[in-house]
Amino acid sequence: MPKLDLTSIPQTNATGYPAPFDAPVQGRNYRRLAPATGMERLRASHVVLEPGAWSSQRHWHREIDELLVMISGEAVLVEDDGESVVQAGDIVAWPAGKENGHHLQNRTDEPCVFVVAAAGQYDTDGGEYPDIDMVFEPDGYFRKDGTKYETDRIP
Amino acid sequence: MPKLDLTSIPQTNATGYPAPFDAPVQGRNYRRLAPATGMERLRASHVVLEPGAWSSQRHWHREIDELLVMISGEAVLVEDDGESVVQAGDIVAWPAGKENGHHLQNRTDEPCVFVVAAAGQYDTDGGEYPDIDMVFEPDGYFRKDGTKYETDRIP
Repeated sequence: MPKLDLTSIPQTNATGYPAPFDAPVQGRNYRRLAPATGMERLRASHVVLEPGAWSSQRHWHREIDELLVMISGEAVLVEDDGESVVQAGDIVAWPAGKENGHHLQNRTDEPCVFVVAAAGQYDTDGGEYPDIDMVFEPDGYFRKDGTKYETDRIP
Repeated sequence: MPKLDLTSIPQTNATGYPAPFDAPVQGRNYRRLAPATGMERLRASHVVLEPGAWSSQRHWHREIDELLVMISGEAVLVEDDGESVVQAGDIVAWPAGKENGHHLQNRTDEPCVFVVAAAGQYDTDGGEYPDIDMVFEPDGYFRKDGTKYETDRIP
């Protein structure tokens, strides 16, 4: 397979987050690369994060390793222990089970572009959002008291 | 974990390829990101490919998905059905089991830099090198008649 023709891969800003947690990711436009390429062991998304948008709510995964490669632009990585600026060529890794909520915020006036690759046990994965009343499990989003949100998760 | 400090991760050009197949990868300087970050489900390498160097011998994997993100510079992707130029921001995916030998050649006068992420069944992985008399299995490199090369594979 030659290099990917990204324009041929559908782009979406869909999210399963219940309101109001969906608002910060409206400017997260992503392409799923595994379905487009036939990969079944590795998942990846190509993401264009518009000014002001977040990559996700701050979260961590029990069973999934994540690796981010910034291609262009700049974003602020927010984690439990503070913030750092991520620029083109920078790499961030989040090993499964490390309970350190993370996300990127684009605080600039230009889009930033990155790829996130991920692998692990999707059928048993779950995790938490430390800043909001939400956790995730394979079958959806829940409040921390265990009651389910009425939206479908997009894994 | 904040963004990776690449300078703190050991860089090597080690290869297990037997001579003369090791010559084209002498200018492939790579850092293994999984051991440095605690990832156990996803593997990744940060690679600086010097002018003239190849990313590997042309190969394919039975059990491993591979995804490459070019960060800077330029290389030529060589596959069974021809060549294509890969530049900063380009992405290439090689799904497990697709018998399409692939590698990158840096034919420019400047280094190029990329990240390759990979996931799959490393304990049963193997594959072939279509251009040379070599195959790989978890326990090493072999000629196509099944006799083993006397080098240790670096998975």
